[in-house]
Amino acid sequence: MSGDHIVALSGGVGGAKLVLGLSHAVAPEQLTVVTNTADDFDHFGLRVCPDTDTVLYTLGGLSNTELGWGRANETWTFMKTVAALGGAEWFNLGDGDLALHVLRTEALKSGQSQTEVTAAMARSMGIAAAILPMSDQFIQTRVNTPHGQLAFQEYFVRDRCEPQVTGFEFDGIDSAVINPLLLATLEGPVRAIIIAPSNPYVSVDPILAVPGMRAAIKASGVPVIAVSPIVAGTAIKGPAAKMMDELGVPSTVVGVAEHYRGFIDGLIIDQQDATAAADIESSGMPVWVTQTVMKSLDDRIDLANTALAFADQIAGRSQSL
Amino acid sequence: MSGDHIVALSGGVGGAKLVLGLSHAVAPEQLTVVTNTADDFDHFGLRVCPDTDTVLYTLGGLSNTELGWGRANETWTFMKTVAALGGAEWFNLGDGDLALHVLRTEALKSGQSQTEVTAAMARSMGIAAAILPMSDQFIQTRVNTPHGQLAFQEYFVRDRCEPQVTGFEFDGIDSAVINPLLLATLEGPVRAIIIAPSNPYVSVDPILAVPGMRAAIKASGVPVIAVSPIVAGTAIKGPAAKMMDELGVPSTVVGVAEHYRGFIDGLIIDQQDATAAADIESSGMPVWVTQTVMKSLDDRIDLANTALAFADQIAGRSQSL
Repeated sequence: MSGDHIVALSGGVGGAKLVLGLSHAVAPEQLTVVTNTADDFDHFGLRVCPDTDTVLYTLGGLSNTELGWGRANETWTFMKTVAALGGAEWFNLGDGDLALHVLRTEALKSGQSQTEVTAAMARSMGIAAAILPMSDQFIQTRVNTPHGQLAFQEYFVRDRCEPQVTGFEFDGIDSAVINPLLLATLEGPVRAIIIAPSNPYVSVDPILAVPGMRAAIKASGVPVIAVSPIVAGTAIKGPAAKMMDELGVPSTVVGVAEHYRGFIDGLIIDQQDATAAADIESSGMPVWVTQTVMKSLDDRIDLANTALAFADQIAGRSQSL
Repeated sequence: MSGDHIVALSGGVGGAKLVLGLSHAVAPEQLTVVTNTADDFDHFGLRVCPDTDTVLYTLGGLSNTELGWGRANETWTFMKTVAALGGAEWFNLGDGDLALHVLRTEALKSGQSQTEVTAAMARSMGIAAAILPMSDQFIQTRVNTPHGQLAFQEYFVRDRCEPQVTGFEFDGIDSAVINPLLLATLEGPVRAIIIAPSNPYVSVDPILAVPGMRAAIKASGVPVIAVSPIVAGTAIKGPAAKMMDELGVPSTVVGVAEHYRGFIDGLIIDQQDATAAADIESSGMPVWVTQTVMKSLDDRIDLANTALAFADQIAGRSQSL
């Protein structure tokens, strides 16, 4: 059903850039962001939710733009003391960041859902968009390597994405329930569903793997537009290109198109990859070529508007059929 | 049995001053500090142990001498973020301090005992003295007031000791087990047992209320010396004098002597209270008058040496009987 509401699927830093653009391109109340929770993990007994928190910090204007992750004006006294006490140092938790993990862990233990906790934090940050964890159940990405399985953050942070990947599993996904608020949103009038330029394997795939997610998105009947996280054969951020190489998939926009084929209605690729557009279109997938590398806020808003225009064009095309 | 080992019973800041003096007056390996754990509490889902941590920070040379509590070089980004998120602000947890609470909570959940956690932290701080929580069980002081019962930290921190007290209860004390390492220490050769100038009602009494504690101390057969936390009718720190007034006990060294009568073998009082010495001695309790107000490290060491000399004198006196 067509309407004004936008649903975006996002991982962490890369996806959150486009999400910020979308929050400016439409009224923030018209934006629902579905966050990947499969890289959530328990560290020091605290529930840490990197992708959800990155979206919170980004929309709340609290991001650390120097580091490229975490909170602005962060201090690190906790980690220094952890080190002095001989505690695990491989995952950096800023002192301010820690407040989210501590309060969240306490709230979850008291019986609140991840959705409720996230909504309360968003409210206190003055965020009007809805930020919805994909599911309230605890799901954990496991990275398969030739030398065994790694927990995602072990692979991603501790081992700096160095191990070769042979595949992924999402522990707990079979018994996970799609976020009920998202289900209700997808049943209401929606204008477009945007897959942000996040890692297809470990940010977007877990969201799509939640039982009922693909069906609910498809049933909404609105265009699903993905923005390629791969530009000129490399990932702007993170291990997406390296993963594609190791999985034997071309680490190109063509590889991204193949990955999402059958599910998305259009792919946005960067102008640096313009020569690949014809190839992808000839296989039946509409392509929009634009600048997808987002440096400024204007870049983010421009890409958001482009994604919405592309979705509207595809919706119009299918209506005229 | 007489020996070189010293056992000190301590609450927080006031007691820790004398404990620091004792750690200089004898070889630190000859010092066992028994800490009050009845003001431990769970905050934000984290186990906070104010007295034990104060002793750790004091002996580890990590105390915040400006604030008079907490850690040196502390930052407060966690609390600022908690406030921004609408979390409870009444109990201040510094960013570095938080590391102890987080690591401790995780270790306790994994099955370690409070004693083991404390020993590991002491080791990492380079502390050679043994710091023993009075019990590994969770005991909580409740403060009775005319308007109902308060958890200790609610009374002490949140309500700034303003409510009138009518008495105290130590939740969990009946099923608590005396720290087995302390029991072993008390069975070995001991030179003296020193009750630091801590609050008699909420710091020392909980220690003495652990089942078997008084008997084990008495069975050691060595002098028990208390240092009065009341000087010239007021407490150097904390609500001891106010509590005595409210409980109808004279808030004087005589009141302290009465409180410990039958258990201690000698009381050290400040020179400002010298005129009370005769009164207390006439009732059969040996008294030593000295400077008990500890401003410098030398003051701490001097008072420690005085307490040990007093204990030795009393031990000699009873041997000569």
